[in-house]
Amino acid sequence: MIQYPSKYIEKAVEEISKLPGIGKKTALRLALHLLKENESTSHLLANSLIDLRTKTRYCTHCHNISDDEICNICISHRRDKSIICVVEDTRDVLAIENTGQYTGLYHVLNGVISPMDGIGPSELTIDSLINRVKASEELKEIIFALSPTMEGDTTSFYLTKKMKGLQLELSTIARGVPIGGDLEYTDEITLGRSIISRTKNDQ
Amino acid sequence: MIQYPSKYIEKAVEEISKLPGIGKKTALRLALHLLKENESTSHLLANSLIDLRTKTRYCTHCHNISDDEICNICISHRRDKSIICVVEDTRDVLAIENTGQYTGLYHVLNGVISPMDGIGPSELTIDSLINRVKASEELKEIIFALSPTMEGDTTSFYLTKKMKGLQLELSTIARGVPIGGDLEYTDEITLGRSIISRTKNDQ
Repeated sequence: MIQYPSKYIEKAVEEISKLPGIGKKTALRLALHLLKENESTSHLLANSLIDLRTKTRYCTHCHNISDDEICNICISHRRDKSIICVVEDTRDVLAIENTGQYTGLYHVLNGVISPMDGIGPSELTIDSLINRVKASEELKEIIFALSPTMEGDTTSFYLTKKMKGLQLELSTIARGVPIGGDLEYTDEITLGRSIISRTKNDQ
Repeated sequence: MIQYPSKYIEKAVEEISKLPGIGKKTALRLALHLLKENESTSHLLANSLIDLRTKTRYCTHCHNISDDEICNICISHRRDKSIICVVEDTRDVLAIENTGQYTGLYHVLNGVISPMDGIGPSELTIDSLINRVKASEELKEIIFALSPTMEGDTTSFYLTKKMKGLQLELSTIARGVPIGGDLEYTDEITLGRSIISRTKNDQ
């Protein structure tokens, strides 16, 4: 048990080290950094955290984080409303947006089905997705872009069953050898699947 | 340039990623973590950062971080007032306190002399140390516990010259092979010095 020179440092280290991936040593380093900086640095940081938690909301359509009731993507006229891409969280939306390859809509599940962590279908935004799918007249395709893990696959499987008979094309993002990756270092399951799911070359 | 779904996330990521060693990706991960947690988590964290920056002060004697005008160590009757250990910053005080091997006082320089970073003697608490040394009647020894780098050595050298003729014993913490370390992996400068500065065994 370290004896901190000030109870305010102790408290700050305690709170900072509650963040994921940050231990007591890193927390102390960050706290001492803030002490050396101008007071405004700490105020800006603290206010941004409060604003983040109290002023952001979730889009009522896709459940992505948003400033308004409906997010920029759902409200945009430039997005293709015939496709919904189902993802686990906001980071996945950012990653896909970053590719510049997708112009459809999203649906953020807020997790995947994981009985080990006590997350069942009712903890996710699945009912909202089903309602959204049934209410839309333009929708033609749903892309599952979930992690290639057992939990991700279970969730895709569950959703596929739920949407049976809805006259929709269902697809999953391609899995295979990462571009730029080394065949030698690709795990055998991925490599095996990439052979089975091989695509024809243009000739 | 990533297009964040909310300006509050963008602002929070910007502020968090100003912290040393935290990039935009980690900042986003931390921001999304706070969004998932209770509102109280963000409030506790934000308030602890403000308190840290606005309520801590520096001990007028040793310049360590403190809640009061004089810190717990300087005010304690149990500390040996005949020795001052000169360190770079608060983290070094914590590290030495943690060993349980030292019962004297400290002096926190708030850095080391580093012309490359524009830090000269006047940026440090050197004048305060000299005044403290001259004013004390009990002081017998000063231990330099600075980093074994060129900057640390320069600072020790500067202080040694400043204290010439003050009838004090000056010492530097031992440098050598770390206990539990492997000789094979010790750099040659450390190993060389550890041979030159060898200590006699009890017989």
